[in-house]
Amino acid sequence: MSTPALPAPAAWLPLVERALAEDIGSGDATGSALLAADDPCEALIEARMKLVVCGLPVALAVLEAVDPELRVETLLPEAARADAGSALLTITGRARSVLAAERTALNFLARLCGVATHTRRFVEAVAGTGVEILDTRKTLPGWRVLDKYAVVVGGGRNHRFGLYDALLIKDNHVAAAGGVGAAVRAARAAAPSHLMLQVEVESEAQAAEAIEAGARWLLLDNQTPAQLRRLAERFAGTAVLEASGGVTLANVREIAETGVQRISIGALTHSAPNADVALELRPRKCG
Amino acid sequence: MSTPALPAPAAWLPLVERALAEDIGSGDATGSALLAADDPCEALIEARMKLVVCGLPVALAVLEAVDPELRVETLLPEAARADAGSALLTITGRARSVLAAERTALNFLARLCGVATHTRRFVEAVAGTGVEILDTRKTLPGWRVLDKYAVVVGGGRNHRFGLYDALLIKDNHVAAAGGVGAAVRAARAAAPSHLMLQVEVESEAQAAEAIEAGARWLLLDNQTPAQLRRLAERFAGTAVLEASGGVTLANVREIAETGVQRISIGALTHSAPNADVALELRPRKCG
Amino acid sequence: MSTPALPAPAAWLPLVERALAEDIGSGDATGSALLAADDPCEALIEARMKLVVCGLPVALAVLEAVDPELRVETLLPEAARADAGSALLTITGRARSVLAAERTALNFLARLCGVATHTRRFVEAVAGTGVEILDTRKTLPGWRVLDKYAVVVGGGRNHRFGLYDALLIKDNHVAAAGGVGAAVRAARAAAPSHLMLQVEVESEAQAAEAIEAGARWLLLDNQTPAQLRRLAERFAGTAVLEASGGVTLANVREIAETGVQRISIGALTHSAPNADVALELRPRKCG
Amino acid sequence: MSTPALPAPAAWLPLVERALAEDIGSGDATGSALLAADDPCEALIEARMKLVVCGLPVALAVLEAVDPELRVETLLPEAARADAGSALLTITGRARSVLAAERTALNFLARLCGVATHTRRFVEAVAGTGVEILDTRKTLPGWRVLDKYAVVVGGGRNHRFGLYDALLIKDNHVAAAGGVGAAVRAARAAAPSHLMLQVEVESEAQAAEAIEAGARWLLLDNQTPAQLRRLAERFAGTAVLEASGGVTLANVREIAETGVQRISIGALTHSAPNADVALELRPRKCG
Amino acid sequence: MSTPALPAPAAWLPLVERALAEDIGSGDATGSALLAADDPCEALIEARMKLVVCGLPVALAVLEAVDPELRVETLLPEAARADAGSALLTITGRARSVLAAERTALNFLARLCGVATHTRRFVEAVAGTGVEILDTRKTLPGWRVLDKYAVVVGGGRNHRFGLYDALLIKDNHVAAAGGVGAAVRAARAAAPSHLMLQVEVESEAQAAEAIEAGARWLLLDNQTPAQLRRLAERFAGTAVLEASGGVTLANVREIAETGVQRISIGALTHSAPNADVALELRPRKCG
Amino acid sequence: MSTPALPAPAAWLPLVERALAEDIGSGDATGSALLAADDPCEALIEARMKLVVCGLPVALAVLEAVDPELRVETLLPEAARADAGSALLTITGRARSVLAAERTALNFLARLCGVATHTRRFVEAVAGTGVEILDTRKTLPGWRVLDKYAVVVGGGRNHRFGLYDALLIKDNHVAAAGGVGAAVRAARAAAPSHLMLQVEVESEAQAAEAIEAGARWLLLDNQTPAQLRRLAERFAGTAVLEASGGVTLANVREIAETGVQRISIGALTHSAPNADVALELRPRKCG
Repeated sequence: MSTPALPAPAAWLPLVERALAEDIGSGDATGSALLAADDPCEALIEARMKLVVCGLPVALAVLEAVDPELRVETLLPEAARADAGSALLTITGRARSVLAAERTALNFLARLCGVATHTRRFVEAVAGTGVEILDTRKTLPGWRVLDKYAVVVGGGRNHRFGLYDALLIKDNHVAAAGGVGAAVRAARAAAPSHLMLQVEVESEAQAAEAIEAGARWLLLDNQTPAQLRRLAERFAGTAVLEASGGVTLANVREIAETGVQRISIGALTHSAPNADVALELRPRKCG
Repeated sequence: MSTPALPAPAAWLPLVERALAEDIGSGDATGSALLAADDPCEALIEARMKLVVCGLPVALAVLEAVDPELRVETLLPEAARADAGSALLTITGRARSVLAAERTALNFLARLCGVATHTRRFVEAVAGTGVEILDTRKTLPGWRVLDKYAVVVGGGRNHRFGLYDALLIKDNHVAAAGGVGAAVRAARAAAPSHLMLQVEVESEAQAAEAIEAGARWLLLDNQTPAQLRRLAERFAGTAVLEASGGVTLANVREIAETGVQRISIGALTHSAPNADVALELRPRKCG
Repeated sequence: MSTPALPAPAAWLPLVERALAEDIGSGDATGSALLAADDPCEALIEARMKLVVCGLPVALAVLEAVDPELRVETLLPEAARADAGSALLTITGRARSVLAAERTALNFLARLCGVATHTRRFVEAVAGTGVEILDTRKTLPGWRVLDKYAVVVGGGRNHRFGLYDALLIKDNHVAAAGGVGAAVRAARAAAPSHLMLQVEVESEAQAAEAIEAGARWLLLDNQTPAQLRRLAERFAGTAVLEASGGVTLANVREIAETGVQRISIGALTHSAPNADVALELRPRKCG
Repeated sequence: MSTPALPAPAAWLPLVERALAEDIGSGDATGSALLAADDPCEALIEARMKLVVCGLPVALAVLEAVDPELRVETLLPEAARADAGSALLTITGRARSVLAAERTALNFLARLCGVATHTRRFVEAVAGTGVEILDTRKTLPGWRVLDKYAVVVGGGRNHRFGLYDALLIKDNHVAAAGGVGAAVRAARAAAPSHLMLQVEVESEAQAAEAIEAGARWLLLDNQTPAQLRRLAERFAGTAVLEASGGVTLANVREIAETGVQRISIGALTHSAPNADVALELRPRKCG
Repeated sequence: MSTPALPAPAAWLPLVERALAEDIGSGDATGSALLAADDPCEALIEARMKLVVCGLPVALAVLEAVDPELRVETLLPEAARADAGSALLTITGRARSVLAAERTALNFLARLCGVATHTRRFVEAVAGTGVEILDTRKTLPGWRVLDKYAVVVGGGRNHRFGLYDALLIKDNHVAAAGGVGAAVRAARAAAPSHLMLQVEVESEAQAAEAIEAGARWLLLDNQTPAQLRRLAERFAGTAVLEASGGVTLANVREIAETGVQRISIGALTHSAPNADVALELRPRKCG
Repeated sequence: MSTPALPAPAAWLPLVERALAEDIGSGDATGSALLAADDPCEALIEARMKLVVCGLPVALAVLEAVDPELRVETLLPEAARADAGSALLTITGRARSVLAAERTALNFLARLCGVATHTRRFVEAVAGTGVEILDTRKTLPGWRVLDKYAVVVGGGRNHRFGLYDALLIKDNHVAAAGGVGAAVRAARAAAPSHLMLQVEVESEAQAAEAIEAGARWLLLDNQTPAQLRRLAERFAGTAVLEASGGVTLANVREIAETGVQRISIGALTHSAPNADVALELRPRKCG
């Protein structure tokens, strides 16, 4: 599909409600005192930097939650690239409502465009290699589905959403099971059949043992490019290899060229700078 | 008080619950398959960079929500500085529980230590000037009270929490009221008596008009240091002057030395990089 | 603004939902048994005493929550005075829905009109003095924003909404800080900059000390008119003086004439008698 | 049972949480600034007027919700009579916690003691007649189970809790069904078998028709004592007669002596003045 | 009334939301990947067995919750009998939405039609006897109001909805009170006046004692038809007799002919097989 | 692991709360009237038929939610087989609490033991074949995690929990994509990398095409044993084959012997009869 699918609203509308409650509380004291209930307004939200558009449906939900009678027109589609100065959407309606919704709508857009834009940088850095850029679980608490949506909008792919929708065997699981091979077999015997299984391995021997036990997806954490290259030469035909750990825009291409098929990067979500977006009230038409 | 007060738990526990739900869902499929229900575990959470400790009570709440029988000992107090490698807390209890809570606890700590640490940098940059560093409403949606708490832990001060607990007259309010002076008078007449009033002014004339109408707290947005200096010379004895807009670590000291009393900085919360914290399972004692 | 602003619906809709749930539960057993699903109805809600109209938007929200297809026409604006017998609104739609919503809508109106009407009595009693009548935190648990809205509709002003949106230093804070002056200075140093500070003082000396330390808003609790007059003579030019404690309709004017600027009165909300409002089904058109 | 049973906590704890949230919000700004986190405190809550004690378990739930480590000792049992000056309970623990919980705990107690005390006045006014004093659905929105509990504590009896737990046939149901008798028969045929049926009648003929159709519980609204006496003489042996409408402390005994078995009174809950209760911090031991 | 009244939506919409959340979670991964956002679709839901239609309003609420723009046309009324192959409703709209809602809508319908259909079998088995078939509290946890609604749709009657809307004295209450008669009198003295009272009796002597004390509704649990007949002969003129325990389709008519007026049957809800309903996508018009 | 892991409590505690609220409402009217607040009680819950024990932790959560001071001892472990008459657990504490919790605790146990027991029958029917018995999404709305847990306790395996944790390509997806092979490739390209992919195929040719495109898990719906055998002979070495549709205890073994590796059965959850469990109050110790 060309357009990434937004997560089900039930999964993020509570965050919108919480965000509005914490900003508006009992009401906008300034707006209530200085604007008449029905003062009209025109406004637009614009990019103040080059960015990947992300979060328009969330911003619309914010506006609608504040005042269902606000009329909104989006000027760019989700996932488009916007230059500094591009308008993303226009709003017409009560000035009180626009001002009450402004900060919350912008805060959502700034974060979501920020993650999408940051992801796009990594995706472009590996362009042509066929390697997939994946996110991690290092998302903002409360923001899992939105952060992961922004990654997809930015051109990345999602890794598991949580502990429940894929298996990832790490060192301590290996220790408990008495070896990588034993852990893989135990997991396949005991865990739900419909969940994919990934194994974190720390050496070529462990990788071989995991594959021997049936694993077809390996996580190679904190390996040097040289190590990744050797692992890829030996195992990339048999299993999906995913590199992770210490990945930056400076080294992501080198890693991508080692032969691994996937790179997962916590920084997509834990270090994405907010994008700069702002709301402008059109002169002489507002308040 | 030496220790900043954590916001009332009722204001942030729902975010903890949401964060756990989105990460754990129906359960940790890997842990359930590979660890016995009562396998014991010792773990510690440590700083992997120099940081300001922030969020320990939130991390504890995460651990308790997952398993009330986990025993936790904190090794550093909230607001302490930790060096890379310092342990923040230890955990003893069921391995399944520790692994289920790990990522959520770390994600909270990484954000909160990140904001506190970033704030501390700005506070130190103006050390000795007597100028206060304030946050803004550019916080993460859903995180208002936690983000603002982290600012205080980092040595900053809080600006208003939302639209409900202080008045801020901006250009559009001024336009609606027919001038800065009219807006100040109208706000004082109509808004609740217990709310402080701040006025954003764009010129010396506006500042004078606002003060004449009774304003005692001005917001000077996007002014040059030279402009700030002139405004401070004229008005700092009468009103509290707060500078904002485009403040960075590079220019904050220059701004602080213009004579304004406060500087509010969106970047404290909208651009704080996550701190690097990690959970270590102690060898041979876990899983 | 002429019309007081209703608090944000998110702040009181949960109370509407709770109220409907407790009255309707699984359904109106009588109406379900005796009225056909689509029996039509016309009804009106009327004042049975002279009152200040308050709560129409809440009543409308009750009706809409029960049946979004009910058509409602309001006949008097919020904050109007209604004589006994005046109709406040008319309702057309399913009889089952009207009967299911009736008691909850009336219970809200009776309380809100009651508080607004009671407040108006106090406001009128001090007419011409310029003194403001303020509410307190002695509101009905769960009703804070609605009770305070009704006070504004009745012509009163709001004091702080809770412990979070203004500072009020009382005797025990003074004891902890080691004196009124010390408490004022400590509060200004440690509390958020955007919050107003009020100090309760028990003597002229304390008032002087508080003002010396920078306080500009004093609470004078349980002082005699003579005491208030003396305090006002000395301090009203420097600080806002607010009297409270034992204020009744019988003595409020005397207090207002002492020179204080504000009087806060718990009875506005803790002792407001419900207003008498009733729903009439129009003969031959209903059920 | 000697002690009235408190409603299931799940039915009223959400109101406690809402009340605390609206009063405390992000935190007690004054207490956080001026009291150290662990400053100890002793306090007591006392009656400032003669009252019926009601709501201690609710007050305890408030205190526990704020700080589970507060130690509380109740000095009088629920439903006891307290004189002005009697202590109801003592609290020991953190001063910050006591001050954060104070207003909410008092607001609950003031309402609940108020309703119980007001009810007791009516119950005493009919002492010796054997007549039961009942409440109505004119309770505070959100407070149904608590208000009705306070009525029982005051010695009254509960009428139906809502539209779902008893049938009450009124004039519009009668009109829809084509007569009182038809309505009674239709209700018995269509409504759940386990619900009691009451019929509002406006004349002796209607009463006779209702009873003929099987009704055994009649509501006699707004009848004069003479009318009630005549109805009681004729029907009290066959059906339970309940008078309502315009009942005051001045006329309740006259009504009780007409021969009806029950009197339902909206004023028990819609016009109960709050009781006067206060929290005292013990000198030299607090804050 | 011909059409049973659906419980108030507030009483069951939370279950719809929970059901959608557990099935859809963050989104339909397959539909999002393979269908374009606006691919259109026509679908119908049909009976795959002879059944009593029940739950259409709930299915509609599911569809609307997923996508308010889905257009739905119901083809049979609630409570109708449908043959295998009959269409219940048609849906037009986005294919993604239909597929996301499908399983949840069907799961609700399968259960509700199942209970209604099972109830109808019992009701038909006693046709002509005048005996009422009642449900019990053996409903699915979380489904009380929906299960009981389905019973009414199937032609049954509701017993009490919970512990709060009728009194049922059982052996342990009797033991605590010191006898059946004492228990009846104590309950009438202490319990709310508006609640009906039922007494479980185990012998003719107990039945006589209960009636003597004023009981007019007896529960006869696990009695043989012969015992029921004898009890009915003696008491059916004075009290309502309800048989229960071990009732099956095979013996329900024999029990109904003993002279009891009511039979309550846990199997209506605890052993109703799901009905077979399915969603068909019309060929060439979908996805 | 020997003991199946219970889903995270946060995933099912809301259902427990809903179930208690719907049964208890404002309180147990009978128990409140007839039992003293602290009357003690001993009780046990026992199996009244041979069953697989399932749901003890849920029953414990019900009891604790009603009264945290109830003491409970479990006598059999989760997943054990119990004969008719075996006690599952004993309860000691307030009689009022036991009676208030009884029905809800039993209703949960009856359902969960019912599903586990029904599943066990299917698992035993295929004993020795190595075939896995899987559940489906035909669970009770609101009960997904609990129903699927009971399947595991009964010896079955879980299929996907919802639309979010695995991909299942059905005929309409195939039609949208333009063929099975195209659909598989499109899904792998667009869907999250961590989700397993299953394809429903209706013919040998489709199966071959799916496998050719990379599918390794096929759903064979409504195929005859002969068809399954032929598909298994050809594809079982390459892909996991799962049969479904019309599976009963009578034919499950025949299907299991065709060579497929998995059989998914909606009846495990949509047609599991409730197990018979009951609570006994021990004579002379209760009430």
